[in-house]
Amino acid sequence: MTDPRLPCPPFPRALFWESGVLRLLDQRRPPAEEAWVECRSLDEVIAAIRTLVVRGAPLIGVAAAYGAVLEERRLRARPPEERRRLLDEGLGRLAAARPTAVNLAAAVGRVRRVLESDPRDAGAGLLAAAEELARHEEKASWAMAREGAGCLGPDARVLTHCNTGSLATLGPGTALGVVRCAWGAGRLASVGCTETRPWGQGLRLTTYELLYSGIPACLYTESAAGARLLDGGFDWLVVGADRVGPRGDVLNKIGTHMLARLARLGGARVMVVAPTTTVDPAWDGRPEGRIEERSGREVWRGMGTGEPPAGLLIANPVFDRTPAEAVDLVVTERGAARPGAADFARVLGL
Amino acid sequence: MTDPRLPCPPFPRALFWESGVLRLLDQRRPPAEEAWVECRSLDEVIAAIRTLVVRGAPLIGVAAAYGAVLEERRLRARPPEERRRLLDEGLGRLAAARPTAVNLAAAVGRVRRVLESDPRDAGAGLLAAAEELARHEEKASWAMAREGAGCLGPDARVLTHCNTGSLATLGPGTALGVVRCAWGAGRLASVGCTETRPWGQGLRLTTYELLYSGIPACLYTESAAGARLLDGGFDWLVVGADRVGPRGDVLNKIGTHMLARLARLGGARVMVVAPTTTVDPAWDGRPEGRIEERSGREVWRGMGTGEPPAGLLIANPVFDRTPAEAVDLVVTERGAARPGAADFARVLGL
Repeated sequence: MTDPRLPCPPFPRALFWESGVLRLLDQRRPPAEEAWVECRSLDEVIAAIRTLVVRGAPLIGVAAAYGAVLEERRLRARPPEERRRLLDEGLGRLAAARPTAVNLAAAVGRVRRVLESDPRDAGAGLLAAAEELARHEEKASWAMAREGAGCLGPDARVLTHCNTGSLATLGPGTALGVVRCAWGAGRLASVGCTETRPWGQGLRLTTYELLYSGIPACLYTESAAGARLLDGGFDWLVVGADRVGPRGDVLNKIGTHMLARLARLGGARVMVVAPTTTVDPAWDGRPEGRIEERSGREVWRGMGTGEPPAGLLIANPVFDRTPAEAVDLVVTERGAARPGAADFARVLGL
Repeated sequence: MTDPRLPCPPFPRALFWESGVLRLLDQRRPPAEEAWVECRSLDEVIAAIRTLVVRGAPLIGVAAAYGAVLEERRLRARPPEERRRLLDEGLGRLAAARPTAVNLAAAVGRVRRVLESDPRDAGAGLLAAAEELARHEEKASWAMAREGAGCLGPDARVLTHCNTGSLATLGPGTALGVVRCAWGAGRLASVGCTETRPWGQGLRLTTYELLYSGIPACLYTESAAGARLLDGGFDWLVVGADRVGPRGDVLNKIGTHMLARLARLGGARVMVVAPTTTVDPAWDGRPEGRIEERSGREVWRGMGTGEPPAGLLIANPVFDRTPAEAVDLVVTERGAARPGAADFARVLGL
């Protein structure tokens, strides 16, 4: 269904590599302000990933690849063995910065392969690898956006969750890229987005991106979105992913599983849009050990005053697992297929 | 199943009538601070209801009844006809302050009947009616709390939504009263509560009440609660109601319908706890016209900075309709029954 001529409105960009510096839009700030963080070392990149300055599975992978470039440059004057040891340690810290998105682990794996192929002078290879990954993600983003837009019927009423736009990858986005291209092609009747507690990626970033692109959007609390899904108010739930298993199981932002089940009950279909770099062929689909649990302070901070009361437990799992049977369509840069379909493995790049 | 000896931990109280002044705990403040609002006129009571200083279906009804007492006193020096006309107008404004909870309309109806029975000197009758309603709600709260607690199995894992405790009624609460009595009786394995976007009644008020009562609680975003329900992490969803129809349809805080559906999918049961003052025999179960839509600023304010961006739509329906088929048990002060059961009408007081 891909139509490469589908028009797409303009969109912002969150990552630049300029004169040996990685510039990242601080994604904790919009829409209140536009602030940029400059990373000149791997540890600055790791901090940016941990603190959500940079987020979105594909963009985390690209930032990680540039982080390795920065570290190799920083260590260039060291003796080869020490340099190799420090690089190894740094890559270990990088891979552990966030556990759910497979893109980060995949980017670190790619960096390690470059280092093994040329352990003495890996600088040029690492930069080439980072630039290639950035180009790949951008190209994949365009391909997915067009592919997914082509899968929507006319006058589709679409709900999206979290932020999966040009701030989360390079190019127009994954799920939000689909929304952009579908809007550009005049195929959407309405666009809704969730606020995405506790960090508000939907409230802050997705509304910012939609308004930037001139797309009228309606913001819903997760509860209001759920009620509207149940009332048949949407035709599609379109989301991204942090990890896709070979069967079509999906790890994505907390709330995805719930919204997918409610979509099914309300007659809407569920589209997962993710590049093949997000596919983990080795993942058995079980969530154990792969759901990042962050501090309960992040939940309290957005709503309460001061510190959480002593004695209060606060659960803050930031991802959940949507099983393959709750997914209607997976879109990658290689095409679109329903989990279980004959061409599903091909679409996943397996 | 009611056991009047079920012990209950201590709880706070949010409404006092003292020396002709209605004192209300400002429910927008806890847990950051405890502030009280003193109402000396009907318009102050109406403002308190509109701005959520006082909330919770049963408590709104009681506050409204005292508001009529204040208005009758304020107008006592006026000529009878003018007094009657101004009282009528005031009661109209009172009834329109919030549209979903039937308790408010029922309290205004009760006030009107008192006025009709003694149009010249209704003061004593209005005070007696307000005090009787307060006593009735307190007694009903105790009866429901014990009845509902008796319906839970041993070691129950309970999730509750919004705030339905002693801040929402008089006595231990509706749904949260059930949690209190069940905890006092040693029947609970764990208690979870949602944050309840956008106002955070769960995050601010329910956690405050649970900690006040010495009950260990875990706070979840609605998304995290939904994921945990789907994973089978709870045995019961226990909620209150703002309006219950004769079939067992329920209007309650936005999110209730979604959580009830997810409970069913995850193997948990759904208990609705509401006094018979919340039952509306005339309601056909359709949500149209009964779902209060508040300003989108309430959604933005809790999470965003400054004013919402121009051009952004924000949906803020603050209630939703859970159809009877998604409810397993309704508990009132008259007992407990499943919608459709032979004794359901009796339990609703019909």
